[in-house]
Amino acid sequence: MPNGYTGSILRVNLTSGTWTTEHPEEIFYRTYLGGRALAAYYLLNDLPAFTDPLGPENELIFAVSVTTGARVPGLSRYTVAAKSPLTGLYGEAEASGYFGAEMKWAGYDAIIFEGCSPDPVYLAIVDGEVELRDAARLWGKDTGDVQAAIWEEMGDRKVQVAQIGPAGENLVRFACVLSGPVFSHVNGRAGMGAVMGSKKLRAVAVRGHQRNAVKDEEALRKLAVWFGQTWKSNPDDRLLREVGTAAYLSALNGAGILPTRNFSEGVFEATDAVSAEAMRRELDAGSEGCYACPVRCKHPVKSDGVYKIDPLYGGPEYESLAAFTSSQGISDVAAAAKANELCNRWGLDTIGAGVTIAFAQECLEKGIISEAEVGAELRFGNAEAMLAILEQIAFRRGFGDILAEGTKRAADKIGKGAEKLAMQVKGQELPLHDPRGKKGVGLGYAVSPTGADHLQIEHDGAFAAPGLFLDKIRPLGINEPVDVLSLGPEKTRLFTYLQIWWSLLNSLDWCFFTVAPVRHFEVEHVAQIVEACTGWNTSIWELMKVGERALTELRLFNLKHGWSREDDALPDRLYEPLPGGPMEGFRMDREEVEAAIDAYHGMMGWDERTGVPTEAKLEELQVCYPGWRPGL
Amino acid sequence: MPNGYTGSILRVNLTSGTWTTEHPEEIFYRTYLGGRALAAYYLLNDLPAFTDPLGPENELIFAVSVTTGARVPGLSRYTVAAKSPLTGLYGEAEASGYFGAEMKWAGYDAIIFEGCSPDPVYLAIVDGEVELRDAARLWGKDTGDVQAAIWEEMGDRKVQVAQIGPAGENLVRFACVLSGPVFSHVNGRAGMGAVMGSKKLRAVAVRGHQRNAVKDEEALRKLAVWFGQTWKSNPDDRLLREVGTAAYLSALNGAGILPTRNFSEGVFEATDAVSAEAMRRELDAGSEGCYACPVRCKHPVKSDGVYKIDPLYGGPEYESLAAFTSSQGISDVAAAAKANELCNRWGLDTIGAGVTIAFAQECLEKGIISEAEVGAELRFGNAEAMLAILEQIAFRRGFGDILAEGTKRAADKIGKGAEKLAMQVKGQELPLHDPRGKKGVGLGYAVSPTGADHLQIEHDGAFAAPGLFLDKIRPLGINEPVDVLSLGPEKTRLFTYLQIWWSLLNSLDWCFFTVAPVRHFEVEHVAQIVEACTGWNTSIWELMKVGERALTELRLFNLKHGWSREDDALPDRLYEPLPGGPMEGFRMDREEVEAAIDAYHGMMGWDERTGVPTEAKLEELQVCYPGWRPGL
Repeated sequence: MPNGYTGSILRVNLTSGTWTTEHPEEIFYRTYLGGRALAAYYLLNDLPAFTDPLGPENELIFAVSVTTGARVPGLSRYTVAAKSPLTGLYGEAEASGYFGAEMKWAGYDAIIFEGCSPDPVYLAIVDGEVELRDAARLWGKDTGDVQAAIWEEMGDRKVQVAQIGPAGENLVRFACVLSGPVFSHVNGRAGMGAVMGSKKLRAVAVRGHQRNAVKDEEALRKLAVWFGQTWKSNPDDRLLREVGTAAYLSALNGAGILPTRNFSEGVFEATDAVSAEAMRRELDAGSEGCYACPVRCKHPVKSDGVYKIDPLYGGPEYESLAAFTSSQGISDVAAAAKANELCNRWGLDTIGAGVTIAFAQECLEKGIISEAEVGAELRFGNAEAMLAILEQIAFRRGFGDILAEGTKRAADKIGKGAEKLAMQVKGQELPLHDPRGKKGVGLGYAVSPTGADHLQIEHDGAFAAPGLFLDKIRPLGINEPVDVLSLGPEKTRLFTYLQIWWSLLNSLDWCFFTVAPVRHFEVEHVAQIVEACTGWNTSIWELMKVGERALTELRLFNLKHGWSREDDALPDRLYEPLPGGPMEGFRMDREEVEAAIDAYHGMMGWDERTGVPTEAKLEELQVCYPGWRPGL
Repeated sequence: MPNGYTGSILRVNLTSGTWTTEHPEEIFYRTYLGGRALAAYYLLNDLPAFTDPLGPENELIFAVSVTTGARVPGLSRYTVAAKSPLTGLYGEAEASGYFGAEMKWAGYDAIIFEGCSPDPVYLAIVDGEVELRDAARLWGKDTGDVQAAIWEEMGDRKVQVAQIGPAGENLVRFACVLSGPVFSHVNGRAGMGAVMGSKKLRAVAVRGHQRNAVKDEEALRKLAVWFGQTWKSNPDDRLLREVGTAAYLSALNGAGILPTRNFSEGVFEATDAVSAEAMRRELDAGSEGCYACPVRCKHPVKSDGVYKIDPLYGGPEYESLAAFTSSQGISDVAAAAKANELCNRWGLDTIGAGVTIAFAQECLEKGIISEAEVGAELRFGNAEAMLAILEQIAFRRGFGDILAEGTKRAADKIGKGAEKLAMQVKGQELPLHDPRGKKGVGLGYAVSPTGADHLQIEHDGAFAAPGLFLDKIRPLGINEPVDVLSLGPEKTRLFTYLQIWWSLLNSLDWCFFTVAPVRHFEVEHVAQIVEACTGWNTSIWELMKVGERALTELRLFNLKHGWSREDDALPDRLYEPLPGGPMEGFRMDREEVEAAIDAYHGMMGWDERTGVPTEAKLEELQVCYPGWRPGL
């Protein structure tokens, strides 16, 4: 192949403390690109069926892509993937920041961790030199302290550190992985922090000076310049810069679908007190961003008030803000910001933590559990009790030890109908988007390979009307607006095409906000950037096939590990009508959801009823998994 | 939609002699583009099930595309489509030249003919003004005379005339449509000339002065300039210019797969005497081409020798040359060139005519028919008898009346095992490519919606090794060479992707030699040209979906008109080994072909066994056919 792309994949056996380097052929990179698709390939092929997610047979994969680290906004993400301890199925989480680019410059497209270390360690890579270092003195420490310690130990504050916190060490099932230097960059979902904790791997520290050997520097420079000159004219990008995603809280409340008190309502009466505007007014600590991106959409917060908030730990974005305010009926924005700080300090996924606490609050409100059992008045709106239980979860103390298992397992343990209040799909807690007002999101929650996940869904509302978003996705074959409240074939088609597109972006490890739902870069820019980075003569067709291939490999992975059609189930509550507000009376329809899942399967080239990919589809996508047989 | 593309579709009722103009919305053009996809839409929706191909309910559609007529090489084709009198299924044929562009400039993207005129007519369009004119004095005349008469009648030698000849008037089932000014541009296959004859429509004459309202003239100009500067460095394009497709005859003979004596052999002993080189030496009359293209790959011939050959009728390209030489064991290149001239004079498809005559020759050689029945010594190698029977076919005289039905119906009439010698799929004669040495071609013949068709197949050999062709199709996701003799999943995948690609090109009405198998333009140029012509923000993904949509609509059309899986049958002879030459012993394998058809169905999102598109696939492709139900 001309203009060969070359890369390296590091395989670290933590049990033995040894490592090897693999150099796949260029065709491998062209088939998988990186990120999700690369991780899917290895996890599908390497893991025996029914691998224990917290055992040594699970693999934890850090992956970037063929474009990561090129000097263009949005190309900075990295993927952390493994079998998920929350879902027992494929798990993955992406984060932006500076780690992904630095890992690439340090010499690796992916790091695959096998086995479990007998003692706490961290992996250090400097310009291709690999070292497993003792992490005993870091174990149990806050993330900020660990980052500082590693910087000191390695003598370089430009070392990028991705790590778990105490929650990951303690195998909290919704523990996250996160990186700095300001902790705004969180691989939050699917419990990747618990997998890392089970391996006694506290951190991965990377530093590299070898910039990407891109094939067409000038093309990339032009695209970066174009981005820099045009992004401010995009109202959505400007909002991200000025306010951040937290701005959506007021918007969703106005639309009547802001998850409130564990999704029992869609309007939160104290929205004004906890809005992004209120947070900026009271807690503003400037802005922060990612490698090569001028948008700087992250907004750290600080406070010396009732709650001391250290801006080192960033600030709550939309999901986190809603998880710790409306979702729990809490009207104190500083308390929510403090909860966000603690999650990042201890390595908890804010969605998992917030939605699990809301579940517990409703259990207590409904008398399913008692204050005595919990040890606190853990009711909707009680910020103090929320912060207390957060600590108990991170350190698995008292009732927190039960909640550290996530809503599904906690509900099973609690019994007495608690499972009706667990807002989860496949064991993973719902993001803070109520599908009753944007039904494609419900389909996304149901069929996502990772369980309910905000990075697997289509941003339904954005394509309901002609305008910026719809205009940008026309090259994906979506030319007509689709009603947010529809879940017919048109919606399933929109969802399927966009799921493939986002699967591609998760394989390229690109930021969804710069390129998707295609806010800024055009669809064709994606092919141009891949071409400039690799020298390949490619197209959106070939790239979309990577996204589709990855989704099909994830379905195979899940089939191998026990998935069945019944697992694609939404919480019962979503089939109940919203009780008030602009969307009063709206609910998901069970028959409609089931029909949409059938149609989605068919559109993916999988058996409509069973969801098993056809052999022809596997051959078409050249899925390399010799062990697969139809009907597995 | 911004930058709206607007167009007009003319619907002419020949029974009543009236017409109307339709103006579909822009989304229609974006969904179908033109050519094949547009014709498929109308034929699927308009024709009742089991419509008589030669009756008034059949529609004959002339269509160009949103890019036709733009001043870039290769954008000059037009589609003629109808239900085929040869196959009873979908029929279509494309031709280049000057007619397509002129039809567009005259104001129409498509002309749909309904009904049957009581008397011979021709349709004249000048700058949007439509007129049905009496053609009584043209009826029965040679094509050259008719073109001259229309030029005179309309007072303009720049009028472009697409017409049938006497063969079409006489409903010869393999009659063609063709256009000038030199008759090198033939819509040959599927019997479109017979449909036109059944409607008593002798010609369509167009003249327009309104050049395309393209959105980005400068982009198109640059692409045309780039083509002009680079095509000579492409060895394949240079060969086309210097020799034309006829050059393939020697190459295929050398490879041992030149159809010889009705496909009973793969090597023709007299190849040197009938090669393109011999033809140029003896009959050369310069070169000729198409609108806006510098390649000029057409090579008219002339002679004042034993056979008088008028260069007005062009010269034989590869298919025609092989059909009238090796295929019939004829070693006289002037006789073959004369046969080509007669086919174009009378409006016969050279492939249909040549292969049908070869069939009759073998019937006579094998004693299935007698010289007395035929009225001539119609044996392999007898050029005089061949030319005599050609006239009998065109005018449906004597034994020619039986052969005018095509090999399938002729064999049924002859009986005595003649059907074993009929080299046809679904009633359409095989092009001059023997699949025993390039097996993907066999799959193409089997599953083509139009029966055996050289414009529906993948050029198998071209992708067997790294090099020009393989490098160019990488953006379509084909990154590794596939053995010409394989018919496994890799080959089916290659075939399926390329069939979608060519279905797109037939919908855009682009020349396969300038862009496919991607000889000159790059894959991405196709999206760029569509964007420049229409102003749409599109991508190869969206465009490939047009190709896929058209193929699925054609499958629905064929299902509606009685197709079943058993119709995708190759002639038995292809399962017998080639008797000598470099490919001695090679044959198609029945199980392998059946498995490839299953896999092809699956890859298209159709039921593997039945070939019926799934409902989900129809919804995904937004196929508009309310009457369709699974299991139809």
